[in-house]
Amino acid sequence: MEIAVIGLGSMGLGMACSLLRAGFSVTGCDPVAAQGERLAGEGGRVAATPAQACAGADLAVLAVINAAQTEAVLFGEEGALTALAEGGVVISCATMAPEAARRLAERTAAAGCHYLDAPMSGGAARAGSGELTFLVSGGGAGLDKARPALEAMSARIYELGEEPGTGAAFKMINQLLAGVHIAAACEAMAFAARQGLDLAQVYEVISNSAGNSWMFGNRVPHILAGDYTPLSAVDIFVKDLGIVQEMAQSARFPVPVSAAALQMFLATSGAGMGRDDDASLARLYAQIAGVELPEAMP
Amino acid sequence: MEIAVIGLGSMGLGMACSLLRAGFSVTGCDPVAAQGERLAGEGGRVAATPAQACAGADLAVLAVINAAQTEAVLFGEEGALTALAEGGVVISCATMAPEAARRLAERTAAAGCHYLDAPMSGGAARAGSGELTFLVSGGGAGLDKARPALEAMSARIYELGEEPGTGAAFKMINQLLAGVHIAAACEAMAFAARQGLDLAQVYEVISNSAGNSWMFGNRVPHILAGDYTPLSAVDIFVKDLGIVQEMAQSARFPVPVSAAALQMFLATSGAGMGRDDDASLARLYAQIAGVELPEAMP
Repeated sequence: MEIAVIGLGSMGLGMACSLLRAGFSVTGCDPVAAQGERLAGEGGRVAATPAQACAGADLAVLAVINAAQTEAVLFGEEGALTALAEGGVVISCATMAPEAARRLAERTAAAGCHYLDAPMSGGAARAGSGELTFLVSGGGAGLDKARPALEAMSARIYELGEEPGTGAAFKMINQLLAGVHIAAACEAMAFAARQGLDLAQVYEVISNSAGNSWMFGNRVPHILAGDYTPLSAVDIFVKDLGIVQEMAQSARFPVPVSAAALQMFLATSGAGMGRDDDASLARLYAQIAGVELPEAMP
Repeated sequence: MEIAVIGLGSMGLGMACSLLRAGFSVTGCDPVAAQGERLAGEGGRVAATPAQACAGADLAVLAVINAAQTEAVLFGEEGALTALAEGGVVISCATMAPEAARRLAERTAAAGCHYLDAPMSGGAARAGSGELTFLVSGGGAGLDKARPALEAMSARIYELGEEPGTGAAFKMINQLLAGVHIAAACEAMAFAARQGLDLAQVYEVISNSAGNSWMFGNRVPHILAGDYTPLSAVDIFVKDLGIVQEMAQSARFPVPVSAAALQMFLATSGAGMGRDDDASLARLYAQIAGVELPEAMP
């Protein structure tokens, strides 16, 4: 099966490599030439535009950042749908509002293709090892066609029904929680520093207590190491908690806890750390309160 | 060794029973007569006042609710310190501000006894099975004397140094996180209901995703079952996040995320659910937004 992968960032490149390992023929496309070269080094082909990548393809995996980029690579000039085979399947992986996913699905169907609302969970490492989690809805008959490719990229696939937008909604619930937990972990660790506690001991105690979260376990080691190299950037949650707020606003649903978390991501981004690791919220708390956090080893 | 257990609520009674099973001689004391009777049924003795419970005892375990109750049972009329042996050890388990623990430790030392700042983590079930976690600081030579009793009540003891107040501070960091995670879990689940998602499926997906937390896993089943029988009441976190706010205020340290969570606990308590299970925050969100949550089986 011929598969186009549009977007070869830290996620898309890993996904393309997982597809290659599973024996699929893969053509990738990314505005950054170096990313295409890395794919070529793994045995993939490289195209200049989404349309060229999709020429002769049955499946297009969209590993771009948001709804606007997804719309552009599908429907823009030299967009994927000008070339994808009739009855082809779009696997749309960007995190976006359910309403945006529904709109893109309608337009894709009108162009004679299937739209799979398939946001994913798991970072670059799991993209590369083919161990992502997909939250999939919609796609109709296209789901069966896409399943072998999804399986090559993932450890787990949740099939969430026929409606596009459901996958997106599940992803947003996860992002609401993940964003709050990162902000809470940073608030707690900086507050612990303010109280003069041994932060490594706090990490050990909390990891074995009811205050633990997946994000606490994953992000606090960055704080302890003083290493804010971006594994996931502050601006990702500025975007994702922003989508949560828009969904909540339009549904007239109050979300005060995630609203407070968003303000801390915004503050950290505004203070110049938007592209740093999202554990940087701890640095903002520490700056505000004049508290010392661990520094990176030279 | 003779041990007094002051406070025979859901935690204290279980702790007293764990001490009895380990072969200690235990005298309990609680204003609710029925709780004393339950201890007597397990082989413990019952006293009318803290002083009577401490007559002839070397150790007093204080399993009361807060700093004010701890102060009253130690220093009030018929208080424990009027009767505890010279050089005896007070194991103080209530959650309180570090400053309160330091003050109580000073006054206990002035009365010739050791004060162990020993808040605990784990619910009634683990109290009964002797599998609590203790966060212990201070106590000096008293710690060695208390260790066999602590071991009988716990699966894990973190020894956090010589300063009373450190145990309390660790506990408050845990409560900050735990409280935020409960509020986030309730916000997310009610928001998922508003989005029309299958809540059991949301629980399953999040439990296996980066949005998971210990509290999400523990509390969301109450929401799915529509069962708000209090395992841990809303008002516990009104108290504990309230202590976090006071500590933060006095340290001039901003805690916007836990402040937002506290407002939701306060709102839920104010709406009449203070003594219900803390998963009741989900009911408040649902009431506000006119969303249906699962109801309990009749």
